[in-house]
Amino acid sequence: MKNFLDKDFLLSTETAKELFHKHAEKKPVLDYHCHIDPKEIAQDRQFENISQVWLGGDHYKWRQLRSNGVEEKYITGNAPDREKFQKWAETLERAIGNPLYHWSHLELRRYFGYEGVLNSETAEEVWTLCNKKLEEKSMSARGMIKQSGVTLICTTDDPVDNLEWHKKIKEDKSFDVQVLPAWRPDKALNIEKPGFMDYIIRLSRISNININSFSALKEAFQRRLEFFISLGCRATDHALEYITYVPSSEKEQELIFSKRLSGGVLTKEEELKYKTAFMIFAGEEYFKNDLVMELHYGCKRNNNTLVFDKLGPDTGHDCIDNFASGAQMADFLDALDSSGRLPRTIIYSLNPNDNAVIGTVLGCFQNDSALSKVQQGAAWWFNDHKTGIIEQLTSLANLGILSNFIGMLTDSRSFLSYTRHEYFRRILCDLIGGWVENGEYPYDIKMLSKIVSDISYDNAVRYFKFNL
Amino acid sequence: MKNFLDKDFLLSTETAKELFHKHAEKKPVLDYHCHIDPKEIAQDRQFENISQVWLGGDHYKWRQLRSNGVEEKYITGNAPDREKFQKWAETLERAIGNPLYHWSHLELRRYFGYEGVLNSETAEEVWTLCNKKLEEKSMSARGMIKQSGVTLICTTDDPVDNLEWHKKIKEDKSFDVQVLPAWRPDKALNIEKPGFMDYIIRLSRISNININSFSALKEAFQRRLEFFISLGCRATDHALEYITYVPSSEKEQELIFSKRLSGGVLTKEEELKYKTAFMIFAGEEYFKNDLVMELHYGCKRNNNTLVFDKLGPDTGHDCIDNFASGAQMADFLDALDSSGRLPRTIIYSLNPNDNAVIGTVLGCFQNDSALSKVQQGAAWWFNDHKTGIIEQLTSLANLGILSNFIGMLTDSRSFLSYTRHEYFRRILCDLIGGWVENGEYPYDIKMLSKIVSDISYDNAVRYFKFNL
Amino acid sequence: MKNFLDKDFLLSTETAKELFHKHAEKKPVLDYHCHIDPKEIAQDRQFENISQVWLGGDHYKWRQLRSNGVEEKYITGNAPDREKFQKWAETLERAIGNPLYHWSHLELRRYFGYEGVLNSETAEEVWTLCNKKLEEKSMSARGMIKQSGVTLICTTDDPVDNLEWHKKIKEDKSFDVQVLPAWRPDKALNIEKPGFMDYIIRLSRISNININSFSALKEAFQRRLEFFISLGCRATDHALEYITYVPSSEKEQELIFSKRLSGGVLTKEEELKYKTAFMIFAGEEYFKNDLVMELHYGCKRNNNTLVFDKLGPDTGHDCIDNFASGAQMADFLDALDSSGRLPRTIIYSLNPNDNAVIGTVLGCFQNDSALSKVQQGAAWWFNDHKTGIIEQLTSLANLGILSNFIGMLTDSRSFLSYTRHEYFRRILCDLIGGWVENGEYPYDIKMLSKIVSDISYDNAVRYFKFNL
Repeated sequence: MKNFLDKDFLLSTETAKELFHKHAEKKPVLDYHCHIDPKEIAQDRQFENISQVWLGGDHYKWRQLRSNGVEEKYITGNAPDREKFQKWAETLERAIGNPLYHWSHLELRRYFGYEGVLNSETAEEVWTLCNKKLEEKSMSARGMIKQSGVTLICTTDDPVDNLEWHKKIKEDKSFDVQVLPAWRPDKALNIEKPGFMDYIIRLSRISNININSFSALKEAFQRRLEFFISLGCRATDHALEYITYVPSSEKEQELIFSKRLSGGVLTKEEELKYKTAFMIFAGEEYFKNDLVMELHYGCKRNNNTLVFDKLGPDTGHDCIDNFASGAQMADFLDALDSSGRLPRTIIYSLNPNDNAVIGTVLGCFQNDSALSKVQQGAAWWFNDHKTGIIEQLTSLANLGILSNFIGMLTDSRSFLSYTRHEYFRRILCDLIGGWVENGEYPYDIKMLSKIVSDISYDNAVRYFKFNL
Repeated sequence: MKNFLDKDFLLSTETAKELFHKHAEKKPVLDYHCHIDPKEIAQDRQFENISQVWLGGDHYKWRQLRSNGVEEKYITGNAPDREKFQKWAETLERAIGNPLYHWSHLELRRYFGYEGVLNSETAEEVWTLCNKKLEEKSMSARGMIKQSGVTLICTTDDPVDNLEWHKKIKEDKSFDVQVLPAWRPDKALNIEKPGFMDYIIRLSRISNININSFSALKEAFQRRLEFFISLGCRATDHALEYITYVPSSEKEQELIFSKRLSGGVLTKEEELKYKTAFMIFAGEEYFKNDLVMELHYGCKRNNNTLVFDKLGPDTGHDCIDNFASGAQMADFLDALDSSGRLPRTIIYSLNPNDNAVIGTVLGCFQNDSALSKVQQGAAWWFNDHKTGIIEQLTSLANLGILSNFIGMLTDSRSFLSYTRHEYFRRILCDLIGGWVENGEYPYDIKMLSKIVSDISYDNAVRYFKFNL
Repeated sequence: MKNFLDKDFLLSTETAKELFHKHAEKKPVLDYHCHIDPKEIAQDRQFENISQVWLGGDHYKWRQLRSNGVEEKYITGNAPDREKFQKWAETLERAIGNPLYHWSHLELRRYFGYEGVLNSETAEEVWTLCNKKLEEKSMSARGMIKQSGVTLICTTDDPVDNLEWHKKIKEDKSFDVQVLPAWRPDKALNIEKPGFMDYIIRLSRISNININSFSALKEAFQRRLEFFISLGCRATDHALEYITYVPSSEKEQELIFSKRLSGGVLTKEEELKYKTAFMIFAGEEYFKNDLVMELHYGCKRNNNTLVFDKLGPDTGHDCIDNFASGAQMADFLDALDSSGRLPRTIIYSLNPNDNAVIGTVLGCFQNDSALSKVQQGAAWWFNDHKTGIIEQLTSLANLGILSNFIGMLTDSRSFLSYTRHEYFRRILCDLIGGWVENGEYPYDIKMLSKIVSDISYDNAVRYFKFNL
């Protein structure tokens, strides 16, 4: 029996151990997609206690607490932090097989030096130990980033954001990790949402363009994108219900936009036409500017009305949506490709059943402009566990060139989540090591170490063309 | 090589063996969902031969016989029981990898003491041995229930049922296993079916309510549900095409109901509106009465017209239906939750691809009213095999709190099917034991034995609030 | 650690090794479905170099080259063959986990006697060795077929084909492998395609029937099918978007057909009605003639417009389509079955999520006319890798009688692809051997060797009723 979470955690063969310890483990971390608040980096936030770090905004953990029958006051309510931590410890010990069990303990080991097991009985010990540790300078936002070996972070930002914190970080020469904005114009896409009109007004103001037509919106989009690029933006991102392709004429698109501006309610077809047109335009702009387009789809958000009315979005009440047309995904990419303006694109679905569909769609649009120009993104959100990661890697290997995969991202709001890269790399090395020891690939350590290093770090640097 | 079906069957690690033999194996069986005929318990039926027990009504086995090219006369026809048994033996030896291979041999070992292998050559020996054993008193309906360690059984019953056999069993003090009715009002839901009108008349009669409106139907529903509860009913069940959510006004609902009563043919939209309204009403009633709502969906039944015309339903001609909207499932639960009247709910899909969707939907509606108030049901019917069980358990662990899972049910018409609990527990212990020995969870036997005991039995007792 | 691709490649237990080496490996190859050009067999083509054999028409490899960022001139362009081979070697070494890695090396070992590893450094050595070997007579089309142990090949042929090469092969008594035509009338089915009218004219000419109505088309269909049967045709095949069932009257069908003939554009519903009617008619004809009906669905073809305009179809730009109604599949089979005219049928989906749906649908239509009359086809195309094969076999075992499975096909344009049968058999033996050594099936070598031999070869001979 292996000890719990020992140095060879998840590494079951000698080749896996060699690949991880001699190669993957030594690579830096490139966090090309996360939801960290740049303000916390700029101000180099120091945290008061472990509940603040762990339970402050982590809706993964909130979900588990509710699934364990914990009262909301210990989750998002005003129970004391120590009591919240106790509830979390009681929940965690029940969460056998859940990735949070592994992530939490990896974080305790790597950042706090705690080698034990967190449960209801050790909670007090862990609470004291962690809070003491959190007083150290190495545990500030920047301290955690630095000790995690991170070289570059892309945050997630709205086109109307003035990026003031990014500017401050850039100007501060004492911090050498690149923190770049990433472009996420969801609010300009979601024409059916109640807040759309207000958003258009905000976008008009900050871009100095009176957005009274779709073409004016495009102009504002371009102007703000330029600004983002001036601050180092290389990545863009879209949260989509699914990747739609419902083409229409420019004239139709303007009519739809006008209808919405004048208070009309759009039909579903009009909505999809607008969204298709918006995404085609966006893709073309990314191509022109040599940016990477990330497409996330398959999520149905805010399903619990009672809680949404009280707490708002991102509180752990989202689920997988299982309607997504593979055909429209292919047609959308083809529309961009046909005009020679398909940017490098990463596709993520929240539905694990989509692995094979995505893997075969992307194979239709590869060419010599990049190593695996169209990528399937890493196992995302609800799939970001051992089985989900193995399935995504295996599917990619079956259908494409795994060696060209740009690998893991944290997708997190927390500075402790970099251990997810370790988790991912262990699983990757175990998978590849297993193939080798089973005679499915030669024990060619030169090639194997290159593959593992590429996926851990080097591919992403090349793919995004980061200056590293 | 392990011997076939030895004492450590499916247990591949020492921890798995310890968990199973010292803990899981010793727990009683709580059969909260099955299709056993209460009359057979009341009359304490004794069976004449093994074909009668095994092949009398088991459409799982009938399917396999047909897949092996066996003539219908040896399946549902009037060939002699001994010949039918021979055909089954010849089929079983070909059914490598099929759960029936394991179930059948587990039953031979546990109930008949036969340690060999059933095949075409041993069929005679097994036939003789089993039939002799079946003469014993311990092999009556009650005998089999008792020797299986069953403490409670929920049958499946129609609202128009007078529950006479349940009453008789209850009155009979010589039998201490609880046999409770479960409420399954499918015929009142399926407004589009030809038999709907006849059913409404039967329901009118037994409830003493003239069902001439939807609100009258609701009243009859309530009156019959009260009666079921008076006989100990704690569980309700619905067989749905999929979990629909097409809301409508009360007025619309009454118009739809009237249209049907007056012989009109409903549109698909009207049908879905009625069904949504019915299910919302039903859910609210279950909440009020503190009952558990089970939702089974994803089955397309009676696909073979020729056989259906000859033999009727439940003859092995059903299949998985792959259309089911995850979005509507979430919206349906939200509709009940928004009004504060979502009962404890268990969701089962026949489509194994739905595991992750369900796992994420249920996470949106958990709260402190129960440990994992909304549950994903155990791998059901066509998924009730080793891989299906592992996938359901793994998905649940990835997305929720596996430790709170209410575990296995038999879903069977046979008194020998309790070995499915053993099968399930072995797989559960092997999965958890494997995690522990792989360093993914600490070897904390106190916690592990509690988790395993909870899933095997204790969680279900608590969840349904049975009096045990 | 096992050596790369040694004699026990993919065989991890002693039982697996015994089953493969003593039984599966010794069975001949029955290639009941491939895309080999009969002309190359008739003329006994000799190949000039390994690029010609490997890269000439293999869009699996083209896809991988593009995914590795290789320029099109090295793929379908006019770069020298040696340079193309270099690009392939550079790509292959990156394709860890991909079935092409295994297939390519199996082919190098079995046909060329090369025991090393192909990569960028060994490319020159392999190029020279293979090209020398290709000069040998044993490496002609017929030579490769013979040394692969093939007894029978079904090609894929259009009803308008005059089958001249099949006639020549049949007349040539020096070659004793049966090469039979298979009937694939896709062009007569695809009424919505631009080429439909031209095709009808060609079919009119070759059948000597003036196809001015749907009933005339049926007559032409029958006449050509008779001709195919006269040359030994036993298998038919259809490429479907999905298995549709939208019934209509004969009168409607004729109106739809007339509309198309007179240049009208059909609605989607009309298209589906025509296709349903066509497929019902086709199925009935196959039943009458005791032919096997193969149904392939779930593919969206030619997704890259730019490349399609330049290179045409079958260039590696197809993907999985994820819309397919399990309900319509069941209804289609039932329509044929209800009239007593369902032929033996094999169903293949390109979507791996369909395994369980198919497995349960086919169970509804089995009877005593064959051992597993309705079959799920082997893991197809994008699923034809280790995990895909294991999943299909496991699903089939869970839901039906694996022992009756008709097994592998090559589905290839290449004479070297017979190693895919070896690949499949190794995986099959490993799966079954693993079950046995894990105590899930007795070590009964007589039964096990029969099961393995049946799936490798004997079942297919019986199922198609080949004269072997």
